[in-house]
Amino acid sequence: MSSETNAKELLCELCRHFYQQGWVSGTGGGISIREGERIYMAPSGVQKERIRPEHLYELDREGQVVVAPEGDFKLSACAPLFLHAFDLRGAGVVIHSHSVHAMLATLVEGDEFRVTHLEMMKGIRDHGYHDELVVPILENTAHECDLADALADAMVRYPKTQAVLVRRHGVYVWGRDWVEAKTHAECYDYLFEAAVKMRQLGFDPARAPTR
Amino acid sequence: MSSETNAKELLCELCRHFYQQGWVSGTGGGISIREGERIYMAPSGVQKERIRPEHLYELDREGQVVVAPEGDFKLSACAPLFLHAFDLRGAGVVIHSHSVHAMLATLVEGDEFRVTHLEMMKGIRDHGYHDELVVPILENTAHECDLADALADAMVRYPKTQAVLVRRHGVYVWGRDWVEAKTHAECYDYLFEAAVKMRQLGFDPARAPTR
Amino acid sequence: MSSETNAKELLCELCRHFYQQGWVSGTGGGISIREGERIYMAPSGVQKERIRPEHLYELDREGQVVVAPEGDFKLSACAPLFLHAFDLRGAGVVIHSHSVHAMLATLVEGDEFRVTHLEMMKGIRDHGYHDELVVPILENTAHECDLADALADAMVRYPKTQAVLVRRHGVYVWGRDWVEAKTHAECYDYLFEAAVKMRQLGFDPARAPTR
Amino acid sequence: MSSETNAKELLCELCRHFYQQGWVSGTGGGISIREGERIYMAPSGVQKERIRPEHLYELDREGQVVVAPEGDFKLSACAPLFLHAFDLRGAGVVIHSHSVHAMLATLVEGDEFRVTHLEMMKGIRDHGYHDELVVPILENTAHECDLADALADAMVRYPKTQAVLVRRHGVYVWGRDWVEAKTHAECYDYLFEAAVKMRQLGFDPARAPTR
Repeated sequence: MSSETNAKELLCELCRHFYQQGWVSGTGGGISIREGERIYMAPSGVQKERIRPEHLYELDREGQVVVAPEGDFKLSACAPLFLHAFDLRGAGVVIHSHSVHAMLATLVEGDEFRVTHLEMMKGIRDHGYHDELVVPILENTAHECDLADALADAMVRYPKTQAVLVRRHGVYVWGRDWVEAKTHAECYDYLFEAAVKMRQLGFDPARAPTR
Repeated sequence: MSSETNAKELLCELCRHFYQQGWVSGTGGGISIREGERIYMAPSGVQKERIRPEHLYELDREGQVVVAPEGDFKLSACAPLFLHAFDLRGAGVVIHSHSVHAMLATLVEGDEFRVTHLEMMKGIRDHGYHDELVVPILENTAHECDLADALADAMVRYPKTQAVLVRRHGVYVWGRDWVEAKTHAECYDYLFEAAVKMRQLGFDPARAPTR
Repeated sequence: MSSETNAKELLCELCRHFYQQGWVSGTGGGISIREGERIYMAPSGVQKERIRPEHLYELDREGQVVVAPEGDFKLSACAPLFLHAFDLRGAGVVIHSHSVHAMLATLVEGDEFRVTHLEMMKGIRDHGYHDELVVPILENTAHECDLADALADAMVRYPKTQAVLVRRHGVYVWGRDWVEAKTHAECYDYLFEAAVKMRQLGFDPARAPTR
Repeated sequence: MSSETNAKELLCELCRHFYQQGWVSGTGGGISIREGERIYMAPSGVQKERIRPEHLYELDREGQVVVAPEGDFKLSACAPLFLHAFDLRGAGVVIHSHSVHAMLATLVEGDEFRVTHLEMMKGIRDHGYHDELVVPILENTAHECDLADALADAMVRYPKTQAVLVRRHGVYVWGRDWVEAKTHAECYDYLFEAAVKMRQLGFDPARAPTR
């Protein structure tokens, strides 16, 4: 199998997996994989758990479509957002999730999601247990492409974050390769869930324990 | 495979899938698929995750049974309700779910379920992020067939909705084809879950954020 | 395949399924199937999702072991409880679940679990939407076998119920055959979950809606 | 198949299973199996659901690496903690879970997690329904290896416990063999979930019911 075949099949496998987690239901969310100068992406508005390699778009590093799938497909509106993570953060894989945990986390917080002293923070690159983990929260827009500038800005202003939340919408998470991106996505999702449940139990997730 | 075989196998596959989501447990809920002038439907009171193509009813557009399955089966009481979605809304597929999220959403709301400013609304046909999404809520009846008139009435009075909730019962969702119906069902279910959780966190899902 | 083989394989399949629902984790819970005068039962304290037909006990209608599995197995302490459902209620299958929903439902209620006006009640034999569904709640005992008399008593005093809850423990559910028992178990579990969540949202599940 | 092959494949199978339960997401958590004088362990920071037998470390009883996997792997920081369970408690298998239930349970309790009068306690060795089940809670440290002394101390001071919780982190659970360790892990996880939900419903899980 060529590396292109591998990347395309991996993308489809990850879509099925994230669908089972509830991150990409109702055709929402998505994934993009970069292999050197080639970028693979699912089309817009399709059922993520049923995507096959021949449905994928191939783009170059400037975001120009190199290969379009046959049939009635449209490039995802997330494309410019995925490209920012590749360009500004050196990402190899970007995951966009509509997880209910991520969405609820954006409701109970202001401009930033903050947690500290949670073991799962250690799964996020360059974060330790006693650090503060901060994820910027953007205001949502009517059209996904209109998020691109604010996302790029947040990626630059928060060099330590590996994710950007979007209010009442979801989260963009990335990593050097698919393993790191998936690890980041799982750890952030755990932290979003934990933070909302901590608030319901009367704990402030942003505050270091006094004990 | 003929298109009839396809439709019947698809119906069984979707039943298994929706069972895993918790939408059709305890023999509740159901699905109906229309292929041109032919309508396929699961029988009443069977375990949805174990239905096989030979268990399905075939009806014509007037709702007359054309082919009945062999054995001790009964036509679903939902049949007249499914037919209204085909006739009044041009649906190709109708999904009836007993999801706990849908049921709880009918408890915390009055005559209408309303949400706004949630990204997943965009998965429902003709709805944008800044719109208000409204789903009428019918009062439940002792016998499912007695819901038919109220359902037809709601379908006419709410031309923009792609779903009708039934108090303390569940939801009917439809779409042009199975892909749109499944997408609608997943997005609505996400919105029902989100709205109930928002209320528990002290947010009114019907209110635009002031931020 | 003989009917004995069928019953044993069905029992193992249902164990795997109920394990995935969270009803029989940690070797808790169980199932028993009666085929005419023969009763099949899983041994005590084994991992329910890994049981194989050759691990099962066969009993006669008096509860005497006819065939014991080879190896280091022990008859389940639930055996006398299962027998009461066969004898007193004509059950063909009994399911014992440790579902968290069932356990929590016994905490928030007194001597009886009561709900009304919930569609899923219609999945329980002889119950309609406007009825009141009542499930007696027994006090738990140190040893499971000590529940037998109280269970038999409840089965006689509540002829309409198809289940008996045990405080801080779980539920026994039965049906004429495996399809009815599984349907009952799924509907009751939905009602237990719904009732606890209704209380958390401020609704009394035992009260008819005023609307 | 040799017993070594069996142990390694079992370890991989259990990792996949615990990943599905949400106990080892984001490369967190882990398992170690002892076969006589040989100890098998997953490497650090890998996706637990994708581990294969050839990725595993083999250690002797002193914790010296006997066989290291080929490739870019690192021994897990949990190694000294797993060894304490083998040495001090005669464990055959140790499971380390980041379950959200376990983590939340450490937030709502002080230095000890206590429950009583819950049937699932009976799945933990030497615990009955009327007993008090106590699990010590350690304060978390920046580096997992720094937990080793406190863990060893807790294992000695609480001879009846089969688990030690770590604040804002997760839980270590063990058993004589993989069946007992898995049973313990499932029962404890149920009890952690139940205790947090009981508190949310206004019940003190450490208090015997007055009824």
